[in-house]
Amino acid sequence: MNFTGKHLIRGTQRATGSEKFSSIHAASGNALDHTFFEATDEEINDAVLGAVDAFESFGKSNHATRAKFLRTIAQEIEQLGDVLLETASQETGLGLERLRGERARTMNQLNAFASFIEDNKWLRIIIDRADPERKPLPKPDLRQMQVPIGPVAIFGASNFPFAFSVAGGDTAAALASGCPVVFKAHPAHPATCELAATAIMRAVEACELPAGTFSMVHGRSNRVGSVLVENPHIKAVAFTGSFRGGKALFDLAARRQEPIPVYAEMGSVNPVLILPSASRRNRIVVAKQLAGSIVLGSGQFCTNPGLLLLTDEESEEFLQELASELAKVQPATMLTPAISNAYVQGIMAQREVAGVRPLTQGPAGLPSPHLASVSAADAITHPHVLEEVFGPSSLAVVATSMEDLVKFCHTLPGQLTATVLGEESEISYAKPVIDVLQQKAGRLIFNGYPTGVEVSPAMVHGGPYPATTDSRSTSVGTTAIYRFTRPVCFQNFPQALLPEELKD
Amino acid sequence: MNFTGKHLIRGTQRATGSEKFSSIHAASGNALDHTFFEATDEEINDAVLGAVDAFESFGKSNHATRAKFLRTIAQEIEQLGDVLLETASQETGLGLERLRGERARTMNQLNAFASFIEDNKWLRIIIDRADPERKPLPKPDLRQMQVPIGPVAIFGASNFPFAFSVAGGDTAAALASGCPVVFKAHPAHPATCELAATAIMRAVEACELPAGTFSMVHGRSNRVGSVLVENPHIKAVAFTGSFRGGKALFDLAARRQEPIPVYAEMGSVNPVLILPSASRRNRIVVAKQLAGSIVLGSGQFCTNPGLLLLTDEESEEFLQELASELAKVQPATMLTPAISNAYVQGIMAQREVAGVRPLTQGPAGLPSPHLASVSAADAITHPHVLEEVFGPSSLAVVATSMEDLVKFCHTLPGQLTATVLGEESEISYAKPVIDVLQQKAGRLIFNGYPTGVEVSPAMVHGGPYPATTDSRSTSVGTTAIYRFTRPVCFQNFPQALLPEELKD
Repeated sequence: MNFTGKHLIRGTQRATGSEKFSSIHAASGNALDHTFFEATDEEINDAVLGAVDAFESFGKSNHATRAKFLRTIAQEIEQLGDVLLETASQETGLGLERLRGERARTMNQLNAFASFIEDNKWLRIIIDRADPERKPLPKPDLRQMQVPIGPVAIFGASNFPFAFSVAGGDTAAALASGCPVVFKAHPAHPATCELAATAIMRAVEACELPAGTFSMVHGRSNRVGSVLVENPHIKAVAFTGSFRGGKALFDLAARRQEPIPVYAEMGSVNPVLILPSASRRNRIVVAKQLAGSIVLGSGQFCTNPGLLLLTDEESEEFLQELASELAKVQPATMLTPAISNAYVQGIMAQREVAGVRPLTQGPAGLPSPHLASVSAADAITHPHVLEEVFGPSSLAVVATSMEDLVKFCHTLPGQLTATVLGEESEISYAKPVIDVLQQKAGRLIFNGYPTGVEVSPAMVHGGPYPATTDSRSTSVGTTAIYRFTRPVCFQNFPQALLPEELKD
Repeated sequence: MNFTGKHLIRGTQRATGSEKFSSIHAASGNALDHTFFEATDEEINDAVLGAVDAFESFGKSNHATRAKFLRTIAQEIEQLGDVLLETASQETGLGLERLRGERARTMNQLNAFASFIEDNKWLRIIIDRADPERKPLPKPDLRQMQVPIGPVAIFGASNFPFAFSVAGGDTAAALASGCPVVFKAHPAHPATCELAATAIMRAVEACELPAGTFSMVHGRSNRVGSVLVENPHIKAVAFTGSFRGGKALFDLAARRQEPIPVYAEMGSVNPVLILPSASRRNRIVVAKQLAGSIVLGSGQFCTNPGLLLLTDEESEEFLQELASELAKVQPATMLTPAISNAYVQGIMAQREVAGVRPLTQGPAGLPSPHLASVSAADAITHPHVLEEVFGPSSLAVVATSMEDLVKFCHTLPGQLTATVLGEESEISYAKPVIDVLQQKAGRLIFNGYPTGVEVSPAMVHGGPYPATTDSRSTSVGTTAIYRFTRPVCFQNFPQALLPEELKD
């Protein structure tokens, strides 16, 4: 397979820069044959101007046009065939089966947004008709609907090279809403990005849309993302990745002359409350399932269960059982050598915090699954022990009582998810903790595991800061479309000037 | 009438500070008898802690409870009787008739939110049921709804002492959603604020709600607002006022350890496109109506028509007619001496910009209505000429052609409103300008005037930056409730743990 290594700008693959970087083979850490250009400032800004041009007509395109476009992208992604899976597997270390599932999910997302916008309900239309006879003043005709916000910048995640990347959920939501996209390719899977971008390019052509509707720029340096977010024509930013990366973009966007919304999903530790029925009666089964969730995809999920909550009486045997389940799992390739190193460092740092008791072997230079425990009191005293260690690791916080646990939970930062493992008979016992968790998370799960994120209109993949920079939104599910819209009210507008959807 | 001058904190009127300030008689600029305490940091933070305590139960209260609370507030506001109108008139210079209307509107808003939350539709519930048979994995039961975001800080506006103040739209929206409120009283009408706060206090008592559900603190210094917004328990901020004030709060909130949403409505110049039929055929009528809109409430509306857009051929006679209408209007008392001074200064600064041609007499130290014109080319060269002059003033931008006007409109910052005065037969001629205006504003008006903001579910009182800091929202109409909510998804939750509204 040949890769151009170039950006996709206004419908053509081009690059003028002199700097290049290599795609890396995740398993070996060695450079692959393909090299990619670092986008220049001019290229980034030209991609944005292309989006501005495209917005003039794409922003007003009808829903049938956009639905067809989304479905065509899904078909073109499928048309790429196995080379897409193989390329992604090389670049990310993820297995072909997992990637095949993720590709199907990505196509589902595109098709779901296509169906979603075919029903005008998504526009949240509110019509309040005139009353010319009203006293003291006649009442005007008012019609509200959502309109696209303008060109948007989207950043892909390393851990989902399809579903949260070039043709992923944010891109699907933005294109569905009528917003042109300038996508910042992830440097950990640039070849995969190039393939997906050409699929979108072909869909743009097939649907005869403006060339600037979708552009993609490559880059490893922070400069590329900064120039993109600081371009005054960009009206919103979506990002999935680390806290450091997301917060930096949020700060940049807030400091612009015109501040813009940033939807950064930055992960969390996803507390799991383990009640006595789970830790005692169902110990064997729960430990096995929980271990499976902790090591799923080498623990590289934003919703990885990185924090377990138990009380004294039931913790010991359960944690031993869980540790022995985790010990059975072999170290697996992580997404990048840097992520692998950060995981090992993170575990070592966690083990040095006062009161932390390791329950598995140390990682010994390899990203093997890890479990440790700490008392709730120590965790409150040393809150940095709760920092996410991205990978197959979990920390058990053991409290002396439910009251102690409530106190600890009040100190928790915002989370994507919070999970309760137990039985209905335990609810009243656990209610005070669940009430606090509910204030901290975007999704509450009962007797399930947080790593499965269903693509459903009812899903919330989001949550209070620092899990995300905007708790009012979700990055999975069709309501993600409202990241990229704003309401407009038309007052006494003549039929000829009203958008089609608001006409009588 | 006696005023305590104290804050309302956790259900009691109290003050411990040593600094005080006076309420000012707007017409004379003299101090009234009443003095008000500057809130101390401790008082502000205690009010927030009261809100945190209240949130535990108020955030979970049922809709009937909150609807009754909102209606009780409306009744208590009415119970205050004429003293409320007289106090507000003294402090703001607004006439009793206007204030009577604004009080009715304020009660309508409270009652509208009460009715709005009685229908579960407002919760945007999405239920996606389980499918245990699905392959390869069973599908979970997912239920999404909106939940209140937590304690919020609200800042009142000087120009609407009822409808955008203590018991105004933002307070109604926040209380309707289940968020306790800490209100920062406006120092330009502190006595009016005290009256309204006692009305809410009585409603809290009558409805047996936690005392911290609503608190109010006084202060003239920026410190009071800063301490409030920087309190880590505050989860959102709403503000109506100047660009400087709103932007300062936005910056503060973005720099917090946990950044929070800020809904600042900061006004705009509200362009009015005047097409030939309006400027020629209906010149006399349109000039009279437009003048009425410009001077309404001494021009102290966020939606005041401060920018007129015309092309050469039709501008001269129309602007002369408009100027002569404005010249008939006597200078009126403005909200505060400072606002009056700023208006006179603003007009003088505008007249000094290159190319600005005054069409009325200068204000000569008094806030008399003002009209000036400038060419589109000069306005593009000197964009600061477009800065809002808060008061009864408008600037006409005269273009050589519709193309010239399109070019100018592309340079416009975000607006609350944009208006078209003309006939349907002119639409195709004016379409290119209207298309650009549509990208710039939250509300588009045809043959009406922007100063009337209908309280309707379909209203959008908002718009792109710098009209507001969040174009995704409105501060008028029931959809304002979503300023203070976030979505939560419950996965496989047992009936006993689900919120009432999500149960089968």
